Amino acid sequence: MSVLVVGSTALDSIKTPTAENPRLLGGSASHAGVAASYFAPVKMVGVVGKDFPRRYINLYKKHAIDLTGLQIGDGKTFHWSGEYELNMNNRRTLLTELGVFEHFTPHLPDQYKSSNFVLLANIAPALQHHVLDQMRRPKFVVADTMDLWLNIALDDLVKLIRRVDGFVLNDSEAHQLTNEDNVFAALKKIHQLGPKYVIIKKGSHGSILSSPKGFFICPAFPLHKVVDPTGAGDSFVGGLMGYLSRARGSIDSNIRKAMVYGSVTASFCCEGFGLNGTIKASTEKIKLRYKELEKLTRF
Amino acid sequence: MSVLVVGSTALDSIKTPTAENPRLLGGSASHAGVAASYFAPVKMVGVVGKDFPRRYINLYKKHAIDLTGLQIGDGKTFHWSGEYELNMNNRRTLLTELGVFEHFTPHLPDQYKSSNFVLLANIAPALQHHVLDQMRRPKFVVADTMDLWLNIALDDLVKLIRRVDGFVLNDSEAHQLTNEDNVFAALKKIHQLGPKYVIIKKGSHGSILSSPKGFFICPAFPLHKVVDPTGAGDSFVGGLMGYLSRARGSIDSNIRKAMVYGSVTASFCCEGFGLNGTIKASTEKIKLRYKELEKLTRF
Repeated sequence: MSVLVVGSTALDSIKTPTAENPRLLGGSASHAGVAASYFAPVKMVGVVGKDFPRRYINLYKKHAIDLTGLQIGDGKTFHWSGEYELNMNNRRTLLTELGVFEHFTPHLPDQYKSSNFVLLANIAPALQHHVLDQMRRPKFVVADTMDLWLNIALDDLVKLIRRVDGFVLNDSEAHQLTNEDNVFAALKKIHQLGPKYVIIKKGSHGSILSSPKGFFICPAFPLHKVVDPTGAGDSFVGGLMGYLSRARGSIDSNIRKAMVYGSVTASFCCEGFGLNGTIKASTEKIKLRYKELEKLTRF
Repeated sequence: MSVLVVGSTALDSIKTPTAENPRLLGGSASHAGVAASYFAPVKMVGVVGKDFPRRYINLYKKHAIDLTGLQIGDGKTFHWSGEYELNMNNRRTLLTELGVFEHFTPHLPDQYKSSNFVLLANIAPALQHHVLDQMRRPKFVVADTMDLWLNIALDDLVKLIRRVDGFVLNDSEAHQLTNEDNVFAALKKIHQLGPKYVIIKKGSHGSILSSPKGFFICPAFPLHKVVDPTGAGDSFVGGLMGYLSRARGSIDSNIRKAMVYGSVTASFCCEGFGLNGTIKASTEKIKLRYKELEKLTRF
């Protein structure tokens, strides 16, 4: 089965202490979509401007991503610029130019509406709602988010959390949402908001799932060097949904493996700027790292 | 086989946002020794003052700890006072009164000198050296440390690292020692200082082993509430050494399990002030949490 991915499509200008990379392909839908494409066919919904480089459209196509739902708006592509500190953990936003994103409404092509696996990648909760409103009975819906929406659209977000099967956020967002420092206490509170599956991402420390079958402690793949972590969270959830959409059996019996595949896919993302790391992955390389993670965690 | 544990024996006054606990039993040797006692007989080396409460001696004895090497000095017991922030991650030292610790020299009783498993728990590197100088050919020596010795006794510490089989430190100390933010890059650099096994502790994020058989990603046991993390690192390494000293087979074939047992023992430590959590553990409870961690990490 295919995965429907809705999110942002952007040009990212990323500064690190050692390099400056202007106008890389970025955005949650780009990262999640390409990550998911290693596991399943992907249908993308998003918007780009007339300045969106042809080579990036070709990159999507190379990954067999269905672009029927990609709108080309009259204006400039969403542009984000950020700077990382030396330890690559802290980043600050230098610039946000919304462009065509400002008046974007995600319209779903008819053939998208019956998708079973829906990934509401990071984007305004109102738009995530709008996508869900157009869907026929999807089998499994996961939403991701970011601190921005906790700050400026909390009500919309809390309503969205009620409507999804799975909700994904990082540890500092979980703290902001629940006022709990302890990740397990935070998971409990987020469950009370509705979703059956809650995943808290902890970057290089891995991630934690809380599900009807209990907790799962998911490791991160060990990297000796992180080139650019932008989009790693999107790649994680993209890989996770890609795997789930293709696996036989129940969500409960597949979600742990799906998280490990997500984790591995995210590790490729961190190895290059923008999508340069992710596009160097392959089904074979992903399987190898999965097996390596099995070995690294066995006791 | 028994474990020889050398380290500090202290009275800890610990303040948290919700409680104040004066003169708890503390110190690296107390935490590591009691933790190890759930797995193997323990021989302790340390010093206390004449003010050291009788009930704490009884606590050691209840755990069958051999106290032949515990000196009773003419003066006051080492007293440390610290305060934790709300998130229980950051702490600051309020007071350090060295007392009898100031002129302490660890003398090993003859029957201690042929111990095979030696844990040099956190204490001045010069004293850790002095213990090693007295040993006949121990089978496996592990040293722990703290940021203080990186600041004031780095040369001694680096020389010590060369002499041990295993070296344990936390992530911020590893960063301080190697100037590497990436934990795997730091492990590589620490290996070059000599030890065959290097473990970086990451608190609630677990720990990472680097060994001749590669990396091991060790989970932390999930706790919904941390009452007092003081001594958790000591308990981790105590449980680890206790298990190793009793396990059949090579270090390589046992060290992963030993770390998980260390992790579980440390989780009990975090559930109470001072040693109040650790002493509520039992062999059965430790085994149960070990099995639970197996389930929580399987994929």
